[in-house]
Amino acid sequence: MITFADVCTAASRIRGHVHRTPVLTSATFDRELGARTFWKCENLQKCGAFKARGAMNAVLALPADVARAGVVTHSSGNHGAALAYAAQVRGIPCAVVMPDSAPDVKVLAVRHYGAEIVFCKIAEREAMSARLQRERGATLIHPFEHPDVIAGQGTAMLELIEDTGDLDVLIAPVGGGGLCAGSTLVAQAMRPRAAMLGAEPKNVDDAARSMATGVRQPRVEGTTSLADGLLTGIGERAFAILLAGKVRVVTVDEAAIVAACRFFAERLKIVVEPSGATVLAALRAIAPELRGRRIGAVISGGNTDFRWLQS
Amino acid sequence: MITFADVCTAASRIRGHVHRTPVLTSATFDRELGARTFWKCENLQKCGAFKARGAMNAVLALPADVARAGVVTHSSGNHGAALAYAAQVRGIPCAVVMPDSAPDVKVLAVRHYGAEIVFCKIAEREAMSARLQRERGATLIHPFEHPDVIAGQGTAMLELIEDTGDLDVLIAPVGGGGLCAGSTLVAQAMRPRAAMLGAEPKNVDDAARSMATGVRQPRVEGTTSLADGLLTGIGERAFAILLAGKVRVVTVDEAAIVAACRFFAERLKIVVEPSGATVLAALRAIAPELRGRRIGAVISGGNTDFRWLQS
Repeated sequence: MITFADVCTAASRIRGHVHRTPVLTSATFDRELGARTFWKCENLQKCGAFKARGAMNAVLALPADVARAGVVTHSSGNHGAALAYAAQVRGIPCAVVMPDSAPDVKVLAVRHYGAEIVFCKIAEREAMSARLQRERGATLIHPFEHPDVIAGQGTAMLELIEDTGDLDVLIAPVGGGGLCAGSTLVAQAMRPRAAMLGAEPKNVDDAARSMATGVRQPRVEGTTSLADGLLTGIGERAFAILLAGKVRVVTVDEAAIVAACRFFAERLKIVVEPSGATVLAALRAIAPELRGRRIGAVISGGNTDFRWLQS
Repeated sequence: MITFADVCTAASRIRGHVHRTPVLTSATFDRELGARTFWKCENLQKCGAFKARGAMNAVLALPADVARAGVVTHSSGNHGAALAYAAQVRGIPCAVVMPDSAPDVKVLAVRHYGAEIVFCKIAEREAMSARLQRERGATLIHPFEHPDVIAGQGTAMLELIEDTGDLDVLIAPVGGGGLCAGSTLVAQAMRPRAAMLGAEPKNVDDAARSMATGVRQPRVEGTTSLADGLLTGIGERAFAILLAGKVRVVTVDEAAIVAACRFFAERLKIVVEPSGATVLAALRAIAPELRGRRIGAVISGGNTDFRWLQS
């Protein structure tokens, strides 16, 4: 069981190692929506995403003798770089298992923080990271199932509520569900009467379907989305927390995601990755319900190749 | 004579009407430079640029009977939109004189804040705004010569120093010179031993030539730069302040400006207009002199069409 207390512990543990990111507002968007929205800018976080919080919390929580043997993950996205950063801060070994096909930019991000990269075939990633755990005694830090990761991700919502006071709608993107689950724990404790929302691409709507049926649904294979951080199916732990928190998942189409990325760049002057932009798209999708509300939204990250700017 | 006290007065006058913008850091840039740099994000300011500060200060400083007749300017850039915003906040008329050839995006920005747009031939802009002053009793708020504008612009550097403590190098872009002059007044009062730098495109280096010769030099006609906010020649008042403050102007070429824009987008995850990116390019240009220093840099704005992303 992960609780709000774990998020508070995470907050004091990671302080000074991650940024307390700014909260921005946009008079233009507020006028469009007829509401007040506060944007928690995790795109301005260390490594460019909220993932630095969970990875840092998990790495700092390890007992010294366990930490010494290092950490391992097979996430090649933002979590891989975040774990490499956290391990570098603590001065312990870190191995990131990556498919041979991983794009250079992701390889460089991990290498930048001094982690070892272990390449393998895409289907062998889990087996390879299990082998590294066994052979080296390294600890697997799962990108969204690890309890310390979920608690760490919740600190973004904690800071947002601390900095903005009374909010009555809260929203975060849902992929594996770590950020949304951590946020839900905070929402239940600090703003029990607020509505907690998740934002998910229509193309990979397993979380929405899972919440609708009450049973965790698999991702439909072969579908994809510009929101490459949200392609993963929702995790078991995260789903249980979202279910208990009665989170409402709002789905958004690809055109709405692109429009949201553009809005952030052109109006808020910040670079937001498509996964992070889903929250703005989701607020637009249910705009009539939001008039007069005070909304807190977590922008998950800013790591993007700007493809959306051309479309 | 404009003094530091005028900047302090401006700061209390405009509080609540403009953002106290965040200060960001980049471990990557600091490693590259071998220094610590603090980025004051005026791209995240109201209207997307520091111009909101000077315009707001000038408009709020007007006596009630003068204000009632409204304000006028012939700047079609960031100052035009900023003045329209300030006038809207105070609830007074604002006319912005624009050339027939002004791009739609600039027209829309001004119209967005409810100002009247008076179109004319580009050569007749000054005559037209003089006529509006005469006929309506409106007050001309010059984009960089007006003392209250210069004092208002200085509040960005004031906040930067308040938020970061001991800095020994300070830098701001130089176009008309309002921001750099306001910053210089603050630097002399709060950090008298710090080096105050200006950043200017090589293609329009009138401020650098003026400082080198001690005599205000005209802009060379026909030259241009991606940094469209810095095309104006330095103003008389600003030049006197820069000269008294022994400001060193560092010039940067177009490729360095593009590279700086990209760095801000890809690493700091913020949208910076080419004029604002000159400060990063200038720090790179004199990197060997900056090792171990603590640097405060004002990013002037974020209003851009992203042309630099394609080059």
